[in-house]
Amino acid sequence: MKKKIGIVLFEDFETLDVFGPVEMWGDLPDYEITMVSQHGGPVKSTQGVTTCASYSFDNAPQFDILLVPGGMGARREVSNSVLLAFLREQDERTEWTTSVCTGSALLAKAGILSGRRATSNKLAYEFAKRQDEGVLWQRSARWVIDGKYVTSSGVSAGIDMALALVEKIYNRELTETIARETEYLWNDNAFNDPFANGASD
Amino acid sequence: MKKKIGIVLFEDFETLDVFGPVEMWGDLPDYEITMVSQHGGPVKSTQGVTTCASYSFDNAPQFDILLVPGGMGARREVSNSVLLAFLREQDERTEWTTSVCTGSALLAKAGILSGRRATSNKLAYEFAKRQDEGVLWQRSARWVIDGKYVTSSGVSAGIDMALALVEKIYNRELTETIARETEYLWNDNAFNDPFANGASD
Repeated sequence: MKKKIGIVLFEDFETLDVFGPVEMWGDLPDYEITMVSQHGGPVKSTQGVTTCASYSFDNAPQFDILLVPGGMGARREVSNSVLLAFLREQDERTEWTTSVCTGSALLAKAGILSGRRATSNKLAYEFAKRQDEGVLWQRSARWVIDGKYVTSSGVSAGIDMALALVEKIYNRELTETIARETEYLWNDNAFNDPFANGASD
Repeated sequence: MKKKIGIVLFEDFETLDVFGPVEMWGDLPDYEITMVSQHGGPVKSTQGVTTCASYSFDNAPQFDILLVPGGMGARREVSNSVLLAFLREQDERTEWTTSVCTGSALLAKAGILSGRRATSNKLAYEFAKRQDEGVLWQRSARWVIDGKYVTSSGVSAGIDMALALVEKIYNRELTETIARETEYLWNDNAFNDPFANGASD
């Protein structure tokens, strides 16, 4: 049986935060992707497209890789104690807990990143920081790996993070194959963050 | 009323072919995005995620921008005369007819690209060519604009194409704002195609 990648959806998630990693992880030999939301069923992104979550928080299986996207909806979900509890519960047994953009604000608010190095969207950097000042926030990073925690900067940075995790789990060769087959110019240097100077609220 | 971007979904479409452009076009001031498929309702991508099409071919409105993605499903859909007729009918009144990856193979098979310059996924280049040898296929191009026809190379190249169309319709400033807000390193040179040498069947 394949291992499970679980992506947490909520209303007004950012489209590419989810589908960038889906594209890069969609054909991994040992993993399959499933979507989960609080109530299951259709969930609409900020860009207005609807995706179907196969599981609700109540019937979701344990995921091996958890991915939390960001987006305008994350500003609301930091106050959703049901979602935060779901993240904490899943995180206890994941192999990898990952986020894109302000998804790290949700992980931070859930208390999952305390004392760990992490990053977030540069256009919502102060918002992320406010969720937990005990996180070792990295202002200049395309993505950050600290133990099993892999957080990325905004939107497109999630694609680079997703490939970095493929390299970590598998190897360089498979990662480069995926990038080539998707004609993606992988920014493979986590420390090269061209958007760090725009950090703001 | 906003103008309409219509994205044509079919089973086994390539995830990022659709959601890369959705991300870049999702907040344009004058356009809204809708999904259409032959029968409407849920449609599954090659990477296993389900998206909901609001319209079927029978009740779809006229789109101002038409986008046709590629993916494994395109290999089947080149033989779907209903889909090809829908593309031809829509194309008669679009402002822009666009494609990502082997979406151009579908446009070519529909006879829409004959005598025009176009490109396609480099890993399925010969497949695209076979659909209509009368297309002026460009082997080395990240994307190609010929009149109202905008075709791109594989998967991630669709993001670059989508931004190029924003520049064409609006201006450089808005395009760079979208790239910055999505922390995307835009490959803004259509002639810079790092994957051209891999062209194969």
